[in-house]
Amino acid sequence: MGLQKPLLDPISDTKPGKNNLITDVPGVRVGQQTIITDRLKTGVTTILPTTENIFENKLAAAGLVINGFGKSTGLIQVEELGTLETPIVLTNTLSVGVAYNYLVKKALAENPQIGLETGTVNPLVMECNDGAVNNIRDLGVTEADIEAAFANCSEQFEEGCFGGGTGMCCYDLKGGIGSASRQIEIDGQTFTLGVLVMSNYGYVSDLNIYDQPIGQQISQLDEYHKRDEDGSIITIIATDIPFNSRQLKRIAKRSSVGITRTGSFIGNDSGEITLAFSTANQIKHEPKHQLMTHQAISDDQMDRYFRMTVSAVEEAIISSLVHATTTIDRKGQQRLSLTDALKKVANKDSAAAPQIAKLQAQLGLETSFA
Amino acid sequence: MGLQKPLLDPISDTKPGKNNLITDVPGVRVGQQTIITDRLKTGVTTILPTTENIFENKLAAAGLVINGFGKSTGLIQVEELGTLETPIVLTNTLSVGVAYNYLVKKALAENPQIGLETGTVNPLVMECNDGAVNNIRDLGVTEADIEAAFANCSEQFEEGCFGGGTGMCCYDLKGGIGSASRQIEIDGQTFTLGVLVMSNYGYVSDLNIYDQPIGQQISQLDEYHKRDEDGSIITIIATDIPFNSRQLKRIAKRSSVGITRTGSFIGNDSGEITLAFSTANQIKHEPKHQLMTHQAISDDQMDRYFRMTVSAVEEAIISSLVHATTTIDRKGQQRLSLTDALKKVANKDSAAAPQIAKLQAQLGLETSFA
Amino acid sequence: MGLQKPLLDPISDTKPGKNNLITDVPGVRVGQQTIITDRLKTGVTTILPTTENIFENKLAAAGLVINGFGKSTGLIQVEELGTLETPIVLTNTLSVGVAYNYLVKKALAENPQIGLETGTVNPLVMECNDGAVNNIRDLGVTEADIEAAFANCSEQFEEGCFGGGTGMCCYDLKGGIGSASRQIEIDGQTFTLGVLVMSNYGYVSDLNIYDQPIGQQISQLDEYHKRDEDGSIITIIATDIPFNSRQLKRIAKRSSVGITRTGSFIGNDSGEITLAFSTANQIKHEPKHQLMTHQAISDDQMDRYFRMTVSAVEEAIISSLVHATTTIDRKGQQRLSLTDALKKVANKDSAAAPQIAKLQAQLGLETSFA
Amino acid sequence: MGLQKPLLDPISDTKPGKNNLITDVPGVRVGQQTIITDRLKTGVTTILPTTENIFENKLAAAGLVINGFGKSTGLIQVEELGTLETPIVLTNTLSVGVAYNYLVKKALAENPQIGLETGTVNPLVMECNDGAVNNIRDLGVTEADIEAAFANCSEQFEEGCFGGGTGMCCYDLKGGIGSASRQIEIDGQTFTLGVLVMSNYGYVSDLNIYDQPIGQQISQLDEYHKRDEDGSIITIIATDIPFNSRQLKRIAKRSSVGITRTGSFIGNDSGEITLAFSTANQIKHEPKHQLMTHQAISDDQMDRYFRMTVSAVEEAIISSLVHATTTIDRKGQQRLSLTDALKKVANKDSAAAPQIAKLQAQLGLETSFA
Repeated sequence: MGLQKPLLDPISDTKPGKNNLITDVPGVRVGQQTIITDRLKTGVTTILPTTENIFENKLAAAGLVINGFGKSTGLIQVEELGTLETPIVLTNTLSVGVAYNYLVKKALAENPQIGLETGTVNPLVMECNDGAVNNIRDLGVTEADIEAAFANCSEQFEEGCFGGGTGMCCYDLKGGIGSASRQIEIDGQTFTLGVLVMSNYGYVSDLNIYDQPIGQQISQLDEYHKRDEDGSIITIIATDIPFNSRQLKRIAKRSSVGITRTGSFIGNDSGEITLAFSTANQIKHEPKHQLMTHQAISDDQMDRYFRMTVSAVEEAIISSLVHATTTIDRKGQQRLSLTDALKKVANKDSAAAPQIAKLQAQLGLETSFA
Repeated sequence: MGLQKPLLDPISDTKPGKNNLITDVPGVRVGQQTIITDRLKTGVTTILPTTENIFENKLAAAGLVINGFGKSTGLIQVEELGTLETPIVLTNTLSVGVAYNYLVKKALAENPQIGLETGTVNPLVMECNDGAVNNIRDLGVTEADIEAAFANCSEQFEEGCFGGGTGMCCYDLKGGIGSASRQIEIDGQTFTLGVLVMSNYGYVSDLNIYDQPIGQQISQLDEYHKRDEDGSIITIIATDIPFNSRQLKRIAKRSSVGITRTGSFIGNDSGEITLAFSTANQIKHEPKHQLMTHQAISDDQMDRYFRMTVSAVEEAIISSLVHATTTIDRKGQQRLSLTDALKKVANKDSAAAPQIAKLQAQLGLETSFA
Repeated sequence: MGLQKPLLDPISDTKPGKNNLITDVPGVRVGQQTIITDRLKTGVTTILPTTENIFENKLAAAGLVINGFGKSTGLIQVEELGTLETPIVLTNTLSVGVAYNYLVKKALAENPQIGLETGTVNPLVMECNDGAVNNIRDLGVTEADIEAAFANCSEQFEEGCFGGGTGMCCYDLKGGIGSASRQIEIDGQTFTLGVLVMSNYGYVSDLNIYDQPIGQQISQLDEYHKRDEDGSIITIIATDIPFNSRQLKRIAKRSSVGITRTGSFIGNDSGEITLAFSTANQIKHEPKHQLMTHQAISDDQMDRYFRMTVSAVEEAIISSLVHATTTIDRKGQQRLSLTDALKKVANKDSAAAPQIAKLQAQLGLETSFA
Repeated sequence: MGLQKPLLDPISDTKPGKNNLITDVPGVRVGQQTIITDRLKTGVTTILPTTENIFENKLAAAGLVINGFGKSTGLIQVEELGTLETPIVLTNTLSVGVAYNYLVKKALAENPQIGLETGTVNPLVMECNDGAVNNIRDLGVTEADIEAAFANCSEQFEEGCFGGGTGMCCYDLKGGIGSASRQIEIDGQTFTLGVLVMSNYGYVSDLNIYDQPIGQQISQLDEYHKRDEDGSIITIIATDIPFNSRQLKRIAKRSSVGITRTGSFIGNDSGEITLAFSTANQIKHEPKHQLMTHQAISDDQMDRYFRMTVSAVEEAIISSLVHATTTIDRKGQQRLSLTDALKKVANKDSAAAPQIAKLQAQLGLETSFA
């Protein structure tokens, strides 16, 4: 479940859905496989965008490259055709090939006509580099791992150090998977927009939560002596609002606002890539008729949808930090969780304790020195 | 002169140049013509990127459309050729045609071969809608106004309600022209990056200065009853760092971070458009030789340049707010300056006074209740 | 009227509409003002995309920059919002500012709320450089000329050396305005796609008509001694097929195929810019409801629509050449029409006469030596 | 070796390099592994862009998506950073994951610092769907195949049904690998531009060779009854001209002209993707200095470079057709080579024989009925 005390930042007055997770969008499910051995801390997170065969019933989609130091696959065709035709796999950078292979095999198994009566398939794989924590050179993700992640897809899933997020670091703290959702009324109907992030970006000194530049204090801890790393963030946005691909690209662009609101500046080495899809209209692989009617929505009140997107992305990132746990990295050193880092700051500097306690309360964390 | 107590946000440890203005970049000059009559509050800001004939000696440049609800001209050719070949004019949206005309005539006068021995010219005009304050339907800007702005181009210029900024509003406060600069050492040499913004965007309740969500309090003032507007921001980035057009586009993208750090979310109606240019290499209109050598810079330490860009853009926006003065708008109502709004908040809510005083001090403003 | 013997190239088996003009698309009208004085040979072509107030009832649209050596305005907002909200003006490069001004004034006159209760307007102006024929430095187009062009908008208009095409050259022959249309059945309904070009590009030696590299022979004429010029082409595509903006961009991309089929290679100096719009769905400026249904069409049979686009663009270009007449250029030399050039080639080289006669017959021209 | 009688189309007056192959560009080598079993007709073509460690010494590069129905990997990062940092693998669509994996392993083996002291790596894999000929669902390409292709990289390689081209069809004829090169003098120095295509696109009836719409006649052969397929084309452009990434993207765009000159129209299902790189400047992975000088070239004479690009791409495609041999497809039917198709047309229609003989002579083929 997402943050239990969601930030409900004034950027949007929308409220979370039932679980404050991307899976609040009807039909969307998430599965994860966490891989932890003596050398590996990595994994796979999979997203099923619909309960139907997605190759036969494609969904409107758009990708956005905020900063292109990334290796995601599938975005070229999403840009051209505006559709998503496979589930989405999130994993580490060097495992993209394995995930591509798995998605090919899955599509072949489910669609006997691929490669025979019809064309091929466009696998959607997205990645971050978890090499700070994981021995990424071991290429530790197998097709069986991806299969296992798909096997446990459901509306409930863990945030923090699970699945693709297992080895990820965010603002030099332990990052990983985070999620949030928002609901909105449009013309009297209720719609949901959900976000899932795999957070692996940012420098500790930049971290800012809810207008508290807490990263400055955390960076003074002994653990952050001379640490200077950067990374990526993958953002998935799902919604049942009937956006077309042009509008989804506009929505996707606002993920950059949610990301930078936590303090970062879109680093050079960061693969900041967002995929947005809508479940509202199904686009048939082989339509019987060429002409049809689509549900559509005006751009006229996009600000409302932009605001809820910013809010959900920001909160999903913070949720990834809040749910992560302190982890020993590849070099044997601690990657602090936000929870532990806040405790350490409060312990170290009693003058800061009240501020920390306030932030802990806002985040629904147990307060230090309660 | 830019902010005298620059924010020096921890996002970057760089320091401002001599005047904390875009004109700290050698060769860059700015001129303005302010038009105030009983119906008009508008004007023109012009930027000369180089002391040489820019048509003959083009500069590397890149445009970036953050949100494309805008009518700037010239960006198509900048994208294709990566060069700037006219000065830049900033004015109101409905005066773009007049400015285009003026830049054509100026180029024809300075370059007798245009349209005869050589081709045409690509005028760079950028705009925001000042219709909340100005009777924009009066089409109040003339070619003579633009000429006057060019005539007073110099290293010194006014910020706030001057030139193109005369009628602009930012976060529902009075906005306008703002500027800032940063200096950096690269391989032992000192370089400058300067920013000029024409700020006309944002909702008051979103305003956040240096992690203080002051817009929430300002929005409670009587002046902000039911006000709900949005607009645009034009950002010009000049530098003598030898970036090529691809790198300048990356630099330009970080302007979006500076913009959203003050609280906005890239609104639907906002024309958020950035132009970045480098004075380092001159690209001759008719080169004698095809092969040449260019000064170049690695992408390896782009994070340093991104940070200084974010810092300068954020500060230029705040400087536009700090320098602006309360103005009567088209409907006869006050558009408060930030300075006046802060005083009113402190007057209204004595509990908020210490926080306001702190912010005033940070911004170099006279403190209320001193 | 377009070509009377349309090429009906095997690239598509579709047939032209009633007049073989862009105005075969219901609601689309074209007007022109031709300016010829002792120094001027220039003009204006205007396109009304709909019989309704287009600012209130916007149309789905997309722009495509094939090569960006061009100065068209309005494409930034078309890209962001996917809509067209003004008529389109085609004129010479240095008159873009005048046309922008005129479109602003026209929109203000027709929409009293612009700049008061609502925002501004996005003028769509497209251009080529007619400086080889016209004294373009004279800035000979006035707002009255543009008004006159709008005043005579109708379903009938002249091709060749009229309106914006008056001074244009194509493949170093006389070019100008050309048009063509194609009709197609989709799910039992008949739809039309129409094209209008303002042709001003290409080197004579590259010209190829219907697989006959006739430009090689034309380039041997005395008139082409040492001529070496290049230019631009503007393509407007109108249709009542319910394409969305993503699909319109795909359609627009195929204009590049129609253009290069006549022999060119997308030259460095060429502003090759295409605008495509669909009249099928109206997008209200201030919609009462946010949710709606739109007519839509699958991408599944796009090849049929691509083929008809290529065919119509190619024919529109050839039609611009066929309808143009030999014109004295700025330097007092003849810019041959295709008709006259073919006659000259046949006169010069009797061996080539049969080939020329065949081409003349294909183009519906009077055959030399009949 | 490329075509022995190169077309030397009037589009460019440049001449081929030594072998009329992409490997005429110094340092560029090509290797292939051809996989033919009872069910498989597929393979791998690999391109080494430099003799140095390319991860340490990156090359300026640009990708271009002409039509995005394709699954190539690596283009996102090429777009952001303008560099190529792995060799290039061309294979069938469903083997992209295997190729990605192999490139990861190769980079890890050659660069021990990847994933430890430095970040990850961006594999460049490009693909077409060879499912008409190959049982693509068998996933017949292994990492060993890719290794074998790299092992035989050299300046000499076979065109036609080899490597990645083994199962490809072009204009419904047998396609595959084709290559060509052009040399040019710039400021007294000689430079080379080379092209390699993997051709798998087009409808037979559209085929046009050197202004002869021969596809119309071929489509009348019994073999083409009711065949209606489309596909993709991958184009690689290598050069030692010191283009930057912006200029390389412009060069890449002209590949679309070369492609459509053979008659196609950029089909809906076609993944038409081009990658261009320059060997002129090496971009160090970890530069000692940030500031440097680069070799550069003006855009002033781009038309010359565009023309040679169009010419080489067109010829590389034709070379792929000329070198391919008739192949039994997945359904047991003949996919005719161009050579065999021309013979059949000449046999079937004696009236067409002279025209066919002329074309055969132009292509350097044995003339039917000689």
